[in-house]
Amino acid sequence: MTAAPHTLTATEAVAAIASGRLSSVDLVKSCLGRIATTDGEIKAWAHLDADAALAQAAECDRIRKAGYATGPLHGVPVGLKDIIDTADMPTQRGTPIFAGRRPDADARIVEHLREAGAVILGKTVTTELAFVHANETRNPHDTGRSPGGSSSGSAAAVAACHVPLAIGTQTNGSVIRPASFCGTFGFKPTRGTISRSGVLQTSASLDQIGSFGRTLADVALLTDAIGSYDQRDPASFARPRASMLRGANADVPVTPDLAWLDLPFYDRLAEDARAGLETVLEALGPQVTRMSAADTLSNLVAVQARIHEYEICLHQAEVFDTHWDQISDTLKPIVTRGRQISKAEYDDALAVKASAESFFADFFTEFDAIVAPSAAGEAPRFGEGTGDPIFCTLWTLAGLPCVTLPLLLGDNDLPIGVQLIGPAEKDDRLLRTAHWLQSHLAAAAE
Amino acid sequence: MTAAPHTLTATEAVAAIASGRLSSVDLVKSCLGRIATTDGEIKAWAHLDADAALAQAAECDRIRKAGYATGPLHGVPVGLKDIIDTADMPTQRGTPIFAGRRPDADARIVEHLREAGAVILGKTVTTELAFVHANETRNPHDTGRSPGGSSSGSAAAVAACHVPLAIGTQTNGSVIRPASFCGTFGFKPTRGTISRSGVLQTSASLDQIGSFGRTLADVALLTDAIGSYDQRDPASFARPRASMLRGANADVPVTPDLAWLDLPFYDRLAEDARAGLETVLEALGPQVTRMSAADTLSNLVAVQARIHEYEICLHQAEVFDTHWDQISDTLKPIVTRGRQISKAEYDDALAVKASAESFFADFFTEFDAIVAPSAAGEAPRFGEGTGDPIFCTLWTLAGLPCVTLPLLLGDNDLPIGVQLIGPAEKDDRLLRTAHWLQSHLAAAAE
Repeated sequence: MTAAPHTLTATEAVAAIASGRLSSVDLVKSCLGRIATTDGEIKAWAHLDADAALAQAAECDRIRKAGYATGPLHGVPVGLKDIIDTADMPTQRGTPIFAGRRPDADARIVEHLREAGAVILGKTVTTELAFVHANETRNPHDTGRSPGGSSSGSAAAVAACHVPLAIGTQTNGSVIRPASFCGTFGFKPTRGTISRSGVLQTSASLDQIGSFGRTLADVALLTDAIGSYDQRDPASFARPRASMLRGANADVPVTPDLAWLDLPFYDRLAEDARAGLETVLEALGPQVTRMSAADTLSNLVAVQARIHEYEICLHQAEVFDTHWDQISDTLKPIVTRGRQISKAEYDDALAVKASAESFFADFFTEFDAIVAPSAAGEAPRFGEGTGDPIFCTLWTLAGLPCVTLPLLLGDNDLPIGVQLIGPAEKDDRLLRTAHWLQSHLAAAAE
Repeated sequence: MTAAPHTLTATEAVAAIASGRLSSVDLVKSCLGRIATTDGEIKAWAHLDADAALAQAAECDRIRKAGYATGPLHGVPVGLKDIIDTADMPTQRGTPIFAGRRPDADARIVEHLREAGAVILGKTVTTELAFVHANETRNPHDTGRSPGGSSSGSAAAVAACHVPLAIGTQTNGSVIRPASFCGTFGFKPTRGTISRSGVLQTSASLDQIGSFGRTLADVALLTDAIGSYDQRDPASFARPRASMLRGANADVPVTPDLAWLDLPFYDRLAEDARAGLETVLEALGPQVTRMSAADTLSNLVAVQARIHEYEICLHQAEVFDTHWDQISDTLKPIVTRGRQISKAEYDDALAVKASAESFFADFFTEFDAIVAPSAAGEAPRFGEGTGDPIFCTLWTLAGLPCVTLPLLLGDNDLPIGVQLIGPAEKDDRLLRTAHWLQSHLAAAAE
């Protein structure tokens, strides 16, 4: 029996479409069918237009049949977090303030997706303004639980086989954490790899784009398609980007050296997560060096918060000023706090951030990657927040590439991810190490 | 003895730099040395900053040595026609009106070049506003002759081994013709393949970007690096682009079928060009079908002129209004004529253009490519204009991909190109056919 198209990975779907075994229309129909039967409960989608998606798919099929060039994501549906602008769909940012908002133009990454032949299936639910206040999306593994945030819908849609690929953003832990809770792969490349032009700005210093998929190769494939230098994004770097897919598919030249940093806040880890990570460390044996972390590293958590809160108040000042009554009670106290941060405190935080970047640049001369938790444990119950982002904070602050692999199960058989963090702009090496880790653990489990 | 680095093709230079046999700094120094000894006569460069170029090259070398990702043009110098905006160099458009002009931002294609790891060596001389009035550049094969225009400096710089690659633009025949006169390859892909954002607009309907190189693979490599969908350019198409390099390196699955259209204006061909083309047609034997062309095709020449002249008056109205005294006597009568074209005449011309596009879409169901002259013959004497663009007019108007191959020599041993034109958005097939033509003629000559 052939697998239902919506269960295919992006890599499998691209190959099936290229060979003519599958049409993009049939793939998109299968995905839409899956959404129709499951999204009533999961609520991953903020906007979905089946006819428009099928028209894009038909155009992809026409291009291929007529012998024109096909792209690296040809005919494959992708979900976009609802803070990424699209000229042909609303982009509502998870708040009634922007209900019905239709941007004039596509985000830069949407241009890249169209050129790559992707089908933009729709917009996925985000938390309010991509920050703390959850919206209605449920975790596909247990609809009584949260999918995490802020890229809630993107993680849930990929986990539920609504789409093989989705895009999210991470300012603290908003890609890695929901991927961990939903049992998908999540990849946030080095800061500046992917342009943020046309994406809601919550923190110019911290906002980064990331990918969700059901395999390591899939998140790499998507990241290659959307990465580019864009002079309009001040964080974007004017240098070649690592080839993510080549990294994800490569074999390691020598067995990697990993580091485990004992951080004080790891006391927030659930018992099942801690035990699971311990089995990973044991399987790694001498390949992992455990070390205690300098206190200064823990202090970075407060530094991230200061920058994030100061900058969202700056970038979204007009929204907060003119729509305060439509801001959630979850967000209001954070904005109030952010408005009290002085310019001097903010500048100090930026200086510490810069020194953290230097610290990690040196650190990775001795290690291929840091192995770390992706989240505190299994997904929290729905209504009890989107989970603690602290396990991602340091790496996001330092702009390092991070990937989460769905390697563990918690006490309730819910997924728990394992995170790997690598040196800046060597994302291919990080993905190569992740590929090795997967194989190594699979072999150790046999 | 090893070849001097400036004589390497881009493909060779990329391989040498990737393997560590050559540094980008040594390549750029060699190119700068070649420019120093020859550009006094050739005058291909409108702006050159040796220190800035060497700094870019050193950065490319640093990236490679530190194990970071390298790009498809890593460390390779590229020349840019002086109508392509660069944030770090002047862009003076071949006219005193824009002397010293420094743009605020890079053109979209310059972003792509930086991401590809290219060294932006400098700006090459263009005719006045990329139109008819020649500037000072000489033909490297005979400095008593014109290099053609309007991409005069780009063609001359590649021919003189100042750079392996340069970018030009074509609104009528401004890539193919100077490439033919200078003995380089020239490639203008399908209209809409390459973004024109940040490039002087002379005709929104006709302006297109093209590449110069000393091999077919080189122009393909450069085109792949700079092609992209850009919503700010209304001609840019939101679909995957053909892989030019794969096309240029591919073998044909079956022997191609070519067409030769006898056009009335071929009576403008010089005797040596006509005789050379005849040897090509003879060597092609039954693979080429000679046919007379409908008169309507010749009428397209007037249609191109009407659109071009009407649109330049529209786009550059302010320049002409406020700097009329700085406009050349060559351009003035064209502007005067353009201002007399009515909106109705212009709309009619656009309608004919659309029908020409339909005509060629049907035409190429039977043929892989049209073989045609690239120019009237050898380069004209310096001071007698930049040559007749009529041999490019139809193909530019219809937005078709065109490539010129330096296959012939004229009576004065000066180069004469042979042009191939293919179906829209099947540029890879055109380049594959061009690759075959080269091999076939080389074999026939033995």
